[in-house]
Amino acid sequence: MDNTFKLTRRQMLATTGGALAWAGMAGVARADLATGDEPPAKPAPTESVKPLPDYAAWKNADAMIVHSANTIETRRTAFGQGIITPLDRLFVRNNVSPPSAGIVQDPDAWVIEVQGVHNPRSFTVAELKTLGLTSVAMVLQCSGNGRNWFPHKPSGTQWTVGAAGCVIFTGVPVKAVLKAVGGSLEGMVYMTGTGGEEIPQGIDPNTIMIERSVPIAAVADALLAWEVNGEALPLAHGGPLRLIVPGYLGVNNVKYVKRLAFTEEQSPAKIQQSSYRFTPVGVKGTPDFDSIWESPPKSWINLPSDPDTPVKAGQVQISGVATGGVTSPAKVEVSTDGGKSWHRAKFVGPDLGPYAWREFSYSAQLAPGTYQLACRTTGQNGKTQPEERIENNRGYLNNSWRDHMVTITVA
Amino acid sequence: MDNTFKLTRRQMLATTGGALAWAGMAGVARADLATGDEPPAKPAPTESVKPLPDYAAWKNADAMIVHSANTIETRRTAFGQGIITPLDRLFVRNNVSPPSAGIVQDPDAWVIEVQGVHNPRSFTVAELKTLGLTSVAMVLQCSGNGRNWFPHKPSGTQWTVGAAGCVIFTGVPVKAVLKAVGGSLEGMVYMTGTGGEEIPQGIDPNTIMIERSVPIAAVADALLAWEVNGEALPLAHGGPLRLIVPGYLGVNNVKYVKRLAFTEEQSPAKIQQSSYRFTPVGVKGTPDFDSIWESPPKSWINLPSDPDTPVKAGQVQISGVATGGVTSPAKVEVSTDGGKSWHRAKFVGPDLGPYAWREFSYSAQLAPGTYQLACRTTGQNGKTQPEERIENNRGYLNNSWRDHMVTITVA
Repeated sequence: MDNTFKLTRRQMLATTGGALAWAGMAGVARADLATGDEPPAKPAPTESVKPLPDYAAWKNADAMIVHSANTIETRRTAFGQGIITPLDRLFVRNNVSPPSAGIVQDPDAWVIEVQGVHNPRSFTVAELKTLGLTSVAMVLQCSGNGRNWFPHKPSGTQWTVGAAGCVIFTGVPVKAVLKAVGGSLEGMVYMTGTGGEEIPQGIDPNTIMIERSVPIAAVADALLAWEVNGEALPLAHGGPLRLIVPGYLGVNNVKYVKRLAFTEEQSPAKIQQSSYRFTPVGVKGTPDFDSIWESPPKSWINLPSDPDTPVKAGQVQISGVATGGVTSPAKVEVSTDGGKSWHRAKFVGPDLGPYAWREFSYSAQLAPGTYQLACRTTGQNGKTQPEERIENNRGYLNNSWRDHMVTITVA
Repeated sequence: MDNTFKLTRRQMLATTGGALAWAGMAGVARADLATGDEPPAKPAPTESVKPLPDYAAWKNADAMIVHSANTIETRRTAFGQGIITPLDRLFVRNNVSPPSAGIVQDPDAWVIEVQGVHNPRSFTVAELKTLGLTSVAMVLQCSGNGRNWFPHKPSGTQWTVGAAGCVIFTGVPVKAVLKAVGGSLEGMVYMTGTGGEEIPQGIDPNTIMIERSVPIAAVADALLAWEVNGEALPLAHGGPLRLIVPGYLGVNNVKYVKRLAFTEEQSPAKIQQSSYRFTPVGVKGTPDFDSIWESPPKSWINLPSDPDTPVKAGQVQISGVATGGVTSPAKVEVSTDGGKSWHRAKFVGPDLGPYAWREFSYSAQLAPGTYQLACRTTGQNGKTQPEERIENNRGYLNNSWRDHMVTITVA
């Protein structure tokens, strides 16, 4: 599709007021969205009747499924085959409404406090830019991606595959920031980032604030990013500054990060203590259960994946994406018979490093009929994508290859 | 900058008629632009007073310098630091006006003839998509990038650094197409691509048509691409289908490619026979002179590069891009004293393969004063970016590190 036509569509949305329908939702965190990751409603994942919210009005509306103002998914058929997800198709997931758009008007002026270090101080983004430069290609994926397939229908957005993308973040290595402040204090166990969302008056901050802790070992590859895919980080993706923890699921990559602390304990925030815990079905989260941190291996087929568009019989390229989670994928296998037999796919294009996904393709000869296409990957750490999901209360970490199968018609 | 604001700017351009000012220029090749690579006028490279042409109205106007309707440059300060150039900032260079936008409305229907093979035939893009899939990250650069610095002021667009970008093209390997047609005929020496621009009645096609030949060895990595940076190839960049010859300068990557032929001789088109030849100053091109094919090693600094914005004294990150041409860069050196002394820069982010550029950064301590920043790179093939340009009539292949220096003020 020519971009001219996409712009026309965007302009239409903007001028008919469609993109303004969510106006007023940004600026102050809404308590009804702050109880973990539940959106206010559960639209069917294949229908997009809601308009894009104001802060994400620049997204390609045709490529997105708008679940709610804070949960916007990429359509399975809208992923390109070029490894890097275009920004205008990248999913959006906020746990609370984003701050005012005013904070990205002068990104260099944004201030972050650095604590739990020998010389605690604040930095503007302009100051961070003097300390170092790094770039990482990585899969950014919501912990609840694939939740749609859990049979107990967990609360939360019913994501299918599109709460994920592979993008390039650029910023300063956290290691360089640590060097500038004399290193972290001894005995610190976690790196804790605090988001810049505004907390409404009269609410206990711990119930709503976005503050996540990850193991301090994650410092090795972490960055404070001001750019994504070569553009200044938009508000929808955490601009002006986002804590990026490569290999860790989306929630750990704290948007509008205003505080980076090295701590002995995990954050007291609800989003750390009880949300984003891997618990049995029916069991609420507590710190006794695993926090949702590193990503598991996962792959899925993007093309062909539209059940309503028959594929022409003959040679067919079956393509999709595969991540090892915290390593590059070592292999991908594809099945055209629902997982009875498997064939080795080939990787397409460059390897962008351990945290990126890779495009894969398998060339199949398909006669007219119905086919169940499946794929599974194994990371370079030997971890394989399983056949079945691990049931859990909130529907996290679904990397079941069976759930991600698609049925296509060949004619 | 928040994308919301950029869209507003784009919308403004579209609604005030700015983006429509070039309407009517697309559709039929303009003979006055078809004499090689001369645009109708030569604006100063740092001024952008012309509006974006209609077919490129979706570009980020703030990031571009519009030299003419067919020559649009990326501002030096607008390159991101994320390796891949965002599509809305990628330069545009057409030798003749693009075809009608209608050709990208149904990209799968575009037809290409394949000739000089054992079983010549045509393919639709839909058919090409069944043959294979490949992706390449590569520098796309106009042969005349850097022409602005030639002292004899060659005719043609006065590009500085911004007729270049690093993008990811996706399509089918030419090798897979060749396999489907039984291979090329014996004795073929060149791969020749023909563009789909419309040729006005009454003009000798050879004087205007875009048809380029490259050595048949280039088949190894060449592709027919329908996607760039994860999006369907826009008209401005050669959609619906473009011949991509990684490592070869822009003109060889034929847009709207409608014919791919394996030939004994180079194309008879003027653009092959006399244009894009590396000749001494004052000497017109003939086939006796080298054709502009492979890219030389080159690097330049993007940040800081604005002479009007003082940089704060202290630690400064000096960053830019480096390509080995047809190999990955092996090293980059940076100078802050106009090339008297050199310091090794570090590479930033992933290596996207031999045809991509790499972001580099050097951390300098700069006291108040004026500095001449320079950089130079050496490819993994041992070729080094030279201090001086090689003078040539049309101002091609400028990779002089001295020309690409920037003078900054530190305060």
